[in-house]
Amino acid sequence: MNQPGATTGMPFDDIRALFKQMPGPDEAAIANVRERDAVLTKPAGALGRLEEIVEWLAAWQGQAPPRVTRPLVAVFAANHGVTEKGISAYPASVTQQMVENFAAGGAAVNQICVANGLGLKVFDLALDMPTPDISEHDAFDEKDCAATFAFGMEAVAGGTDLLSLGEMGIGNTTVAAALAFALFGGEAADWVGPGTGLDADGVNHKAVVVDQAVRRIGDPGTVEPLEVLRRLSGREIVAMAGAIMAARFQRIPVILDGYVATAAAAVLHAQAPGALDHCMAGHMSAEPAHKRLLAAIDKTPLLDLGMRLGEGSGAALAAGVVKTATQVHADMATFNQAGVDTAH
Amino acid sequence: MNQPGATTGMPFDDIRALFKQMPGPDEAAIANVRERDAVLTKPAGALGRLEEIVEWLAAWQGQAPPRVTRPLVAVFAANHGVTEKGISAYPASVTQQMVENFAAGGAAVNQICVANGLGLKVFDLALDMPTPDISEHDAFDEKDCAATFAFGMEAVAGGTDLLSLGEMGIGNTTVAAALAFALFGGEAADWVGPGTGLDADGVNHKAVVVDQAVRRIGDPGTVEPLEVLRRLSGREIVAMAGAIMAARFQRIPVILDGYVATAAAAVLHAQAPGALDHCMAGHMSAEPAHKRLLAAIDKTPLLDLGMRLGEGSGAALAAGVVKTATQVHADMATFNQAGVDTAH
Repeated sequence: MNQPGATTGMPFDDIRALFKQMPGPDEAAIANVRERDAVLTKPAGALGRLEEIVEWLAAWQGQAPPRVTRPLVAVFAANHGVTEKGISAYPASVTQQMVENFAAGGAAVNQICVANGLGLKVFDLALDMPTPDISEHDAFDEKDCAATFAFGMEAVAGGTDLLSLGEMGIGNTTVAAALAFALFGGEAADWVGPGTGLDADGVNHKAVVVDQAVRRIGDPGTVEPLEVLRRLSGREIVAMAGAIMAARFQRIPVILDGYVATAAAAVLHAQAPGALDHCMAGHMSAEPAHKRLLAAIDKTPLLDLGMRLGEGSGAALAAGVVKTATQVHADMATFNQAGVDTAH
Repeated sequence: MNQPGATTGMPFDDIRALFKQMPGPDEAAIANVRERDAVLTKPAGALGRLEEIVEWLAAWQGQAPPRVTRPLVAVFAANHGVTEKGISAYPASVTQQMVENFAAGGAAVNQICVANGLGLKVFDLALDMPTPDISEHDAFDEKDCAATFAFGMEAVAGGTDLLSLGEMGIGNTTVAAALAFALFGGEAADWVGPGTGLDADGVNHKAVVVDQAVRRIGDPGTVEPLEVLRRLSGREIVAMAGAIMAARFQRIPVILDGYVATAAAAVLHAQAPGALDHCMAGHMSAEPAHKRLLAAIDKTPLLDLGMRLGEGSGAALAAGVVKTATQVHADMATFNQAGVDTAH
C-alpha cells in the first residue's frame, strides 16, 4: 500500500541510524539568552517558564535571540481498522468530515490558529484505506511504515521555526493506548480513557481491545519501540514520529499536543533517550492517561486547561504563549537602556 | 492629600452600599452560549476551560456570544512608606523608573500586550507621595481612601470589554501580605514571600513588619475589610479595588494578575461574598502565598507558569487565551454547517 506523497520508503535500519546522528542543543545560544535575560528590566527569574521557553527555543533553533516568525501547526489525519471493535463514541466517517471542516476553516484549531497568528497545514493519509485492526493484525509492514515515517519527515520541509503537532483520527486514542502500554508496561486499564466520550463500559471494552493488541506482539516493555510503532500504530502517528525526527535535524523546536501526539513522540523517547529534547509538551490533556504518559517521557506540560480535543488545539494554544515569550525576550529594554536601578 | 485625577471622594458608606447593588450574571446569555457550544464541531466539553471562559464572559458581559474587541491591561503604580523598613530587594526609586519604562514600551507587559493585541494604560498615583509606613501608621484617612477608590472606578470608564488588572510598586508584596493576613488570619509568615528577590533573612524580617502592621489594627479576621483596606494598603491597591467594583457595574469581566492584584480583589470578596464573580484569576504566581490567597477567594488560576513579575504580566498572558476562547466559540462551524456526524 503506497503512502500518498511518500515517493520512497527507507529501511528501518536507516531510521535506527538517525537516532545516533541527532544534533544536540546549541550551548552558545543558551549562554547568549541567559546573558541578555540577566539585564532585562525585571527581577531574575521573574518570568518563570517564559524564560525557560526562550532558552529551549534558542538551544534547538541554534540562534539567540530565538525567533518565531513562521509558526506552523501540522495536523495529520488517518483512519483505523480497530474502529470495527466499537471503541469510539464517533463513527469513522467523522475523520474525513473533520478534514473537510479543517479545509473550510470551521474547526477549533482553525480559530486558535487565526487568533494566534499560526499557519495550519493538514495532511490526510489515505483516509479510505484504514490500517488493519491492531487487535488482530499489524498496522504496517516495514516498508509501508518506513514510507509513512518518511512522509512525515517531508511534511515539515519548506519552512517553519516552531512546529506544533496534532492529529485527527477516529479511534486513535485506542491506538495511542496500545502504544503506551506496549512501550511502558503497567496494565491496559492504566492507558485507556473516554477519548471523545465513551462511558465506563466503553472504556472497559477499550481496555480489553488494547490488551489484546499488545499481548499479540509480546510482553509490554520488551519489544523494540520502532517495532511497536510498526505493529500497533496508525498512519498519523507514524507521520508525527517522522516529523519530530526531521524537525530535530532541521533545528525546528516542536510542541506536542495531547495523548495521541505524545504517544507518537514517546516511541522516539523509548527508542533513544534525549530524542525529544527539542520537544515540549504543549498541554495536559483531560484524557486521564496523558499525565502518566508525560511522566514516562519526563515532560511538564505548559498549559493545563482540561482540553481533550486533539487537532493540535492544545499545542496551538501553547504556541501562542511561546510566541509571546520570544517577543518579550527579544524586545524588552535592559536596565541600562531604561535607566532602571538594579537590586540592592 | 489629594489623589491625582480624583475630583471627589465618596464616603465609605457609599462604597458599602455598592456591594448591595452589584448586578448578577446574565443567565440568558449563559444559556445561549451553552446552546451554541452543544452544536459546534467538537465533542461536548472537549475544550475544557476554554468553554468555561466563554460562559463566564457571556454571564458578565451580558451578551452571547461574548466579544473581546477592546481588551485593556490597566496597571496602577504607587509608592509605599513601608519600604523604609527594608522589605524589598529593590530601591523605591524603581517604581517611577518602571513607570517610565512602561511609557517607553520597554517592560515585559508592553511586549505581552503587543504580542496579544491588548491595549495598555498605566496610572501612576502620586509616586512622590508614598503612603505612610503601614507598620506604624494608617495608609489613608477615610476621605483619601475613598477618593483613590473613586479614581480606580473612573479608570475603567470609556471602554473595554475585558479588563486585566496589574500593578507596580516597590514594597507592595509586603502590603499585600498585611492585607491577606488581616483579612484571613493564620500567621504573618503564611503570607510573606521573597517578592522581587529577598533571601530567607529578608523574608523573616518582612514577616515581622507585616505582623506589626496587622497587630496594630486588631486581631486578624476581625476588622471590616474596607477598614483593612484603608489602614493597611496603598494607592495602587485601593485603585484596583475600585476598578474591580466599577467593572462589575459596567459589565466588564476582569482578569486578576498576581499576589498584589489578588489581595486588592480579596478585600471585596471578604466584604461581600460574590463580589468577585465577574473576576477570574489569570495565573498562579510563584510568590508562595498566592496559592493560599487564591484558595481563600475560591479562584482557580488559568495559567501556572512560575511567573512573579507583577505589572499585569500574568493577567495579560491569560487575556490572550481568553481572546482565543472567544474567537473559537464565535467562529467555529456547527455540525450541521460542516456536515459532520455526531456521536453514536
